[in-house]
Amino acid sequence: MSETNKQIRLAQRPQGMPGDDTWTLDESDAPTPGPDQFLVRNRYVSLDPAMRGWLRDARSYIEPVQIGDVMRAGAVGEVVSSNHAKFPVGAKVMGIFGVQQYALSDGQGVVVVDDTVAELPLYLATLGMPGMSAYFGLLDIGQPKEGETVVVSAASGAVGQVVGQIAKIKGCRVVGIAGGPAKCKWVVDELGFDACIDYKNQDVVEGLKQHCPDRIDVYFDNVGGDILDAVLARLALKARVVVCGAISQYNNTGPIRGPSNYLSLLVCRARMEGFVVFDYVPRYREAAMEMAGWLTQGKLRYKLDIDEGIENFPATLRKLFTGENFGKLLLAV
Amino acid sequence: MSETNKQIRLAQRPQGMPGDDTWTLDESDAPTPGPDQFLVRNRYVSLDPAMRGWLRDARSYIEPVQIGDVMRAGAVGEVVSSNHAKFPVGAKVMGIFGVQQYALSDGQGVVVVDDTVAELPLYLATLGMPGMSAYFGLLDIGQPKEGETVVVSAASGAVGQVVGQIAKIKGCRVVGIAGGPAKCKWVVDELGFDACIDYKNQDVVEGLKQHCPDRIDVYFDNVGGDILDAVLARLALKARVVVCGAISQYNNTGPIRGPSNYLSLLVCRARMEGFVVFDYVPRYREAAMEMAGWLTQGKLRYKLDIDEGIENFPATLRKLFTGENFGKLLLAV
Repeated sequence: MSETNKQIRLAQRPQGMPGDDTWTLDESDAPTPGPDQFLVRNRYVSLDPAMRGWLRDARSYIEPVQIGDVMRAGAVGEVVSSNHAKFPVGAKVMGIFGVQQYALSDGQGVVVVDDTVAELPLYLATLGMPGMSAYFGLLDIGQPKEGETVVVSAASGAVGQVVGQIAKIKGCRVVGIAGGPAKCKWVVDELGFDACIDYKNQDVVEGLKQHCPDRIDVYFDNVGGDILDAVLARLALKARVVVCGAISQYNNTGPIRGPSNYLSLLVCRARMEGFVVFDYVPRYREAAMEMAGWLTQGKLRYKLDIDEGIENFPATLRKLFTGENFGKLLLAV
Repeated sequence: MSETNKQIRLAQRPQGMPGDDTWTLDESDAPTPGPDQFLVRNRYVSLDPAMRGWLRDARSYIEPVQIGDVMRAGAVGEVVSSNHAKFPVGAKVMGIFGVQQYALSDGQGVVVVDDTVAELPLYLATLGMPGMSAYFGLLDIGQPKEGETVVVSAASGAVGQVVGQIAKIKGCRVVGIAGGPAKCKWVVDELGFDACIDYKNQDVVEGLKQHCPDRIDVYFDNVGGDILDAVLARLALKARVVVCGAISQYNNTGPIRGPSNYLSLLVCRARMEGFVVFDYVPRYREAAMEMAGWLTQGKLRYKLDIDEGIENFPATLRKLFTGENFGKLLLAV
């Protein structure tokens, strides 16, 4: 009477963009929890740019996914069978459950979530890792002050949409950079950004000149590449560049392109600093409380992009890297 | 009865390495000071990597030198004629007097120096702009703590030699990077660095692995390029990269090569930060006092590389970029 568990496993390390042959789709019986374990039926799996890094066999902030392993992913679901007192049947939970339909857990790193406060997928978006990255990256590393100019790339993405809105809440001028008129229109009209530059159809250097007359105090970078260089050329004195990611470079088969204009850090007495959201786990609760408040007050809006079917994982993941997704990308499994 | 004043002026902006034709050597009569002015007979002119940036017609921390102007340079000399009460005849002074034998000044930015405390050229070296760059760049931006590992490139250069010795005074493990066995031997045997990697004859990546077993907490970068990338690949958690310069890139005719490994800032939660020494002018006195104390106690040693003759300025300047100088480069004029 056991249920079938479909799982996406890493078949081989990709060169460049992960293809269909990067993965295998396995089927097996859903496992049965042992003592102090429970079984989660995943509802939504999070697709994040960081996944590309986890496929690389190199030193990083986390171990790479090994060939043959179920692909690592954040997910939300429901406990369907339990020998663990803290995670009873029926509880809604978030954790690193992987790209699969059922996950066994001992509770480590798992959080019970309340789907009456916010819909379940939001715990993988604004109230999940992307939201935490935005909150701590912007406030802790970027340290924006009222009246300053904040620029964020991948502005309609899972992290970018939250960064820009928090910066607005903090009284900053906010300029987004996104691909295509629909995304740009949405962050300005719906999220209240002051402007958004469409990097696919506009000159980013010119756009920054136009929309950042007082230059750029904080840049939250999700993309790297040409856009990072364009922003570096327009930093204000004592600017802060928050390195959250570099999605434009993740599928390079050669070396990553470093920022040619990094000496602007010298000219502007500026700093560029990286962070890893997992370091902030002890403070997630504090951030989630504040952000849930903003959600309730309508100060924090969001957009989810939900695809269906675990078998579509390979194609859905590629949407992230081509910019085809619009909003936080999830897979209903 | 006026003296002849030989001056080096900018004839044209160089492409790549500044050639002989970048400059003209002019001769004219030394000027006569007007009210509240004085005339300085320059003794030593400072040759600094930053000069290359001043030749570029681009936004920077300081205006570019204009074509036809006397080349900007720090210099030390003696007041030989004066209508200024604070700068009497006979006073030894340091200022941005330019590459010329005589300079007229109204006293702005000029400091009277005491050549009984330290020999005159030292006010262009350890007690001048390079020493100040080392002191504030390392202590304010790099913030080394006892027991940490500090790496400095161009280790025997004007700034590097001071950086490494201050880091030793602060109780750090210090590893230099320099070109050729003589420079490496000197920083280890004479200055007390723990090790020095000869980038011309050794693999820097391997050298860093060997000499920085606990990785790198502070990197003071004077060179950019491949060496910056090698260090980025070996940062410790929460490392600080101080961007002082990028001499390997200054004569590029194409774009500067950005650091491919900059995402190491993310993995290591590290920061890269630039500074401009002129911002610290109000604190020069404090730094000079402390460094003069270290000089007297023999904790701070130095090496000067003094060429003779203002007409040799074009060739002497090139020594900086080929690494032919050994120690702080000066020209006796």
